[in-house]
Amino acid sequence: MKIKIDFIENGTVTSVKGFKAGAVNAGIKKKSSKPDLGIIYSETPCTAAGVFTRNKIKAAPVIVCQNRLPADDIQVIIANSGCANAVSGQQGMKDALEMAALAAKKTRVNPASALVASTGVIGRNLPMDIVKQGIVSIELSENGGHDFARAIMTTDTVSKEIAISVNDGLFTIGGVAKGSGMIHPDMGTMLCFITTDAAVDKDFLSGMLRTAADVSFNMVSVDTDTSTNDTMIIMANGLAYNDRINEKTELAEAFQEALNEVCTYLAKAVAADGEGASKLIEVNVTGALDIESAKICARTIAASPLVKTAIHGCDPNWGRIIAAAGRSGAEVVEEKTDLSICGISLLKKDSAIQTGNGEVSKAMAEKIVVIDLNLNLGKASATAWGCDLTAEYVSINADYTT
Amino acid sequence: MKIKIDFIENGTVTSVKGFKAGAVNAGIKKKSSKPDLGIIYSETPCTAAGVFTRNKIKAAPVIVCQNRLPADDIQVIIANSGCANAVSGQQGMKDALEMAALAAKKTRVNPASALVASTGVIGRNLPMDIVKQGIVSIELSENGGHDFARAIMTTDTVSKEIAISVNDGLFTIGGVAKGSGMIHPDMGTMLCFITTDAAVDKDFLSGMLRTAADVSFNMVSVDTDTSTNDTMIIMANGLAYNDRINEKTELAEAFQEALNEVCTYLAKAVAADGEGASKLIEVNVTGALDIESAKICARTIAASPLVKTAIHGCDPNWGRIIAAAGRSGAEVVEEKTDLSICGISLLKKDSAIQTGNGEVSKAMAEKIVVIDLNLNLGKASATAWGCDLTAEYVSINADYTT
Repeated sequence: MKIKIDFIENGTVTSVKGFKAGAVNAGIKKKSSKPDLGIIYSETPCTAAGVFTRNKIKAAPVIVCQNRLPADDIQVIIANSGCANAVSGQQGMKDALEMAALAAKKTRVNPASALVASTGVIGRNLPMDIVKQGIVSIELSENGGHDFARAIMTTDTVSKEIAISVNDGLFTIGGVAKGSGMIHPDMGTMLCFITTDAAVDKDFLSGMLRTAADVSFNMVSVDTDTSTNDTMIIMANGLAYNDRINEKTELAEAFQEALNEVCTYLAKAVAADGEGASKLIEVNVTGALDIESAKICARTIAASPLVKTAIHGCDPNWGRIIAAAGRSGAEVVEEKTDLSICGISLLKKDSAIQTGNGEVSKAMAEKIVVIDLNLNLGKASATAWGCDLTAEYVSINADYTT
Repeated sequence: MKIKIDFIENGTVTSVKGFKAGAVNAGIKKKSSKPDLGIIYSETPCTAAGVFTRNKIKAAPVIVCQNRLPADDIQVIIANSGCANAVSGQQGMKDALEMAALAAKKTRVNPASALVASTGVIGRNLPMDIVKQGIVSIELSENGGHDFARAIMTTDTVSKEIAISVNDGLFTIGGVAKGSGMIHPDMGTMLCFITTDAAVDKDFLSGMLRTAADVSFNMVSVDTDTSTNDTMIIMANGLAYNDRINEKTELAEAFQEALNEVCTYLAKAVAADGEGASKLIEVNVTGALDIESAKICARTIAASPLVKTAIHGCDPNWGRIIAAAGRSGAEVVEEKTDLSICGISLLKKDSAIQTGNGEVSKAMAEKIVVIDLNLNLGKASATAWGCDLTAEYVSINADYTT
């Protein structure tokens, strides 16, 4: 099936039929006037699926969502920033369940139809009195997606939002994400909520979400640290009244492609807004022996502190890229490898190309630095995204809680 | 066998009987007056063994040494800084072999009795005219170890040297190491040369060196980047005239213990002098299910950018330590985990201990920050070392070649 994708101007989760959202500054983040508590609500029950952190230490809200998904009757997601509700003991689990129940009560849905997510400092309990008051005062509206997107930000400098219309309004997909630090592939360390009016089978939705995460968020790294709170949830309310999508329907491929598009857009936005980042790094590995090699090679380069600092300084120190590829675990043969940075060829099958460093350095001054590495060993390829490593990253993280 | 270790004042590789060394400023590093080319020489042929980088991309000198070791007739090691001779094509291999041959010629030994090592920028060829002139002008002496230690430094701020006398002079072990950036466990990313007058069997020496590397250099991380040039070589000239050490001799255990001591000392020195570092981080993991879990858990915490930045800022954000343990691959159960920083208990089996952040922060202001994590699952333990992550690391690496 042919697919046509149109980006919706100012698109967000509430650009999708039947979804409302809202947020307030509850006061969970002290000394901040920004929203820190938000709700996404669907007028009708949704098919919903999630992918979650693989960290052995999982935050209480992650466990709540894992127990409830996939499901056919989800209507509400409540999320907060300022406190991760992770490593928070039995009280943490009680609080996560209560937060979901309060959101369900507010929107008059079954308690089991509500999901919950948190992000922020690990090892603290939620200030539940503040959360309770906050939930009561949230106003839900069809334009509330932007407020919700801001409510889940921590060190993010910009909100990450998108909505697309597929095949002239056949269905719509919206998405918001947060993430800036503790970002490393293994479910892409962040919160991400996707809404769609497409009608999709529950079990098929889980698989499609996993596939989309694998090519998008799981290919992003800011700092190699994987969070305890990674949560990515999709809610499909079916209000587009399309033929229900499952593995047998013609629309399945188009939906997967559209979902990948939304997730890749958000993943790149997360990488570009990595803590302290001034540049987006895109690493394209081609000619790998197999897809796993291509992925691990691209991700290792995108995550290498020495590659990241060199790119920050516009330093064409390309040996670091080859060294990172060599330690990645992928098969790499020095004599076969081709490398270029920003389209300028630097290594061609073991011969360093004599290029003026000035020329490469100048090209690297752009906001997006593209690394193309051809291993010339096979046919597999993968793309990973990251950001440069700056002194600002250190200063953001040296005094996060104090 | 009981072992008594005495540290030799100002000890280095030439503190060992029969070893001489020397170095010159050949000019490989432009704009530097520091030595950049050095030789270690033994008056008599040595049993020698090495461990090397596991990076798929190996520098030419690494391949030369791998082909020659283990051996019974090594007498010379030549090493340079300023150029890694890695990703340097067929010319690079020719240059590495010629460098070894020139060092052999100078010291009048068989060409196959010489080893070679390089460190510095990847992707460039050695300036062989400068190297040739440099080799001729090196003067070898019994006090030359210090000059040699300085000649292999790159971004190191201090030289790393040690010598110990075992059981009142029964035998002596000396060692030098360099390493500051591109430091991550998998053979500990650096150059390290060990000299000893003990008589040791060739094959037994290899195993002992690997064991020592595993508890020392392989437990160090500065920045998760593994180098193309990692080289660790031990030369044992037998001039102590002890009963030749092999797996059957009583002295074997004492020699292993002494070798571990030397390597751990140098490994900690490498971690403490990590690029831009202001603190040494020591992570002790106990109660792990097995030794591999203990190691991967300790190393993941020591390498976590978020742990490293928090320690830099004396920020007791201990949730990051638990999150790093959780993503390490080791089995971790939140309800069983105990954590303390600098001896102050912060988490005891899922209950955060209420401690004044000010107290912990003050303790973290010391030059050495010790993290003790008890997983309470088994009996295995491991220690890893790292350093804090500072803005200085970024500035050192943003313009390394330009």
